[in-house]
Amino acid sequence: MINGHTEIIAHIGFPTHSFKSPQIYNPYFRSIGENSVVVPLACEARDYPQFLRAIFALRNIRGALVTMPHKMTTLNLVDVASPAAMVAGACNAVKKGADGRLLGDMFDGEGFSRALLRKGHPIKGSKVLIVGCGGVGSAIAAALAAHQPAMLRLHDRQAESAHALAQRLQTYFPATRVAVTDNDPAGMDTVINASPLGMNPDDPLPLDVQRLAPQTLVGDVVMAQTLTPLLAAAQQRGCPIQIGTDMLFEQIPVYLEYFGYPSTDAQTLRSLAQLEA
Amino acid sequence: MINGHTEIIAHIGFPTHSFKSPQIYNPYFRSIGENSVVVPLACEARDYPQFLRAIFALRNIRGALVTMPHKMTTLNLVDVASPAAMVAGACNAVKKGADGRLLGDMFDGEGFSRALLRKGHPIKGSKVLIVGCGGVGSAIAAALAAHQPAMLRLHDRQAESAHALAQRLQTYFPATRVAVTDNDPAGMDTVINASPLGMNPDDPLPLDVQRLAPQTLVGDVVMAQTLTPLLAAAQQRGCPIQIGTDMLFEQIPVYLEYFGYPSTDAQTLRSLAQLEA
Repeated sequence: MINGHTEIIAHIGFPTHSFKSPQIYNPYFRSIGENSVVVPLACEARDYPQFLRAIFALRNIRGALVTMPHKMTTLNLVDVASPAAMVAGACNAVKKGADGRLLGDMFDGEGFSRALLRKGHPIKGSKVLIVGCGGVGSAIAAALAAHQPAMLRLHDRQAESAHALAQRLQTYFPATRVAVTDNDPAGMDTVINASPLGMNPDDPLPLDVQRLAPQTLVGDVVMAQTLTPLLAAAQQRGCPIQIGTDMLFEQIPVYLEYFGYPSTDAQTLRSLAQLEA
Repeated sequence: MINGHTEIIAHIGFPTHSFKSPQIYNPYFRSIGENSVVVPLACEARDYPQFLRAIFALRNIRGALVTMPHKMTTLNLVDVASPAAMVAGACNAVKKGADGRLLGDMFDGEGFSRALLRKGHPIKGSKVLIVGCGGVGSAIAAALAAHQPAMLRLHDRQAESAHALAQRLQTYFPATRVAVTDNDPAGMDTVINASPLGMNPDDPLPLDVQRLAPQTLVGDVVMAQTLTPLLAAAQQRGCPIQIGTDMLFEQIPVYLEYFGYPSTDAQTLRSLAQLEA
């Protein structure tokens, strides 16, 4: 029950319609008697720099979840960015430090890696293709790189995004084999769609599913629907899959700790979530 | 249930702890299946001008309730102020017009007058003392003036506030007898505390209750507790009273219409409210 003592977690992005965080965090906060609420704030890119500063001037703001299209912009708007954010080139979490400075971090990649490992799918020594090298793709690449894959292949329709990510990875993880390639999934252990393709019903598939081997794990970051067309096609070929909300749920405990809340495990959060509401 | 389609009503003020609006509007929105939520936003005065513009840049903001200490400031921040706001010298409602301009209005006085009339307490021809000539006191004076009282007495510990209000009333309601006076309630039909005295437990009473006649209606705008020390003392002397939330509830239908929602009556809102939660 929201009242005058409620603290705000701002979920900032545009558009907001596919946001799932209010339906995940808010039931959890209720379950532990925490008077906080996640609120979707539909902020367009041109308004975001001023808005981020303004919302953090509030006295009852506990933190911000930052999503499309602001993750990359945020890196330049915070006063201090974590190493993970620097490598990813993006932030998806912002809070105010004790000294009043804005702090930025990035948990997408950590959530994605945790979800893979929880499934028993190894990262170390594996070959991975990442399609989409924006904020979330970069974050996943950075988090995976920390687990020593045999090879990270990067693809983006805007080749310069893939090249820029490759360069950041080379800087922070020089031992990782990185290549900018096409989107052919053949021979990969893990294939990840980190592009927005799949958010709209008429999007083309991000890669050629005919080229998927049945042992390849296919992960998707799109959360507009549980089973994206890519994941449905992969499943039909017998591939293990990782749905978008896996990444989301696995990173929530990380967010909760970051904002200073009692934490819990992803499974508990998923059981409390009211995603159909 | 908040989700990605939820629209925001920002309740902006500082401090927010005594806010009641979330517990009133949100149960009503739920009851009519309206996906909107009132959220308390604790904004200090120095941050407010920038914050107001920033929050109205959002694409899912439906409007703002503005309270202490921002009501008077808001008049100069909106692009167009209503006549009621101009007379009151303050705004407590802001929305975006179809042309993108910020519109400001003031409903405190309207709520207070409606509550008096609903009780069968006449305004026309009555003698009224208003203690506290800030935003809410001015708004009440303006709304009462429209109902042709015999005399409006204005008192403020800062005499210049009372004089400024008297001048605005003279400009917009030249037929009204207005005087800046002390806070002696003797001989009044209606006595209104529109000062913040009563918000804190150790506040002095805003006026000398020994001088109240038992037929004088005593109204209070303070909502920190249902029965303020002033109202409790007035009740002991046999006076009819009007509690702070009466003004609040009577103006909510006005707000609802202003923001484009289906409206209802104050009694329904009060029965749905979850003020103890």
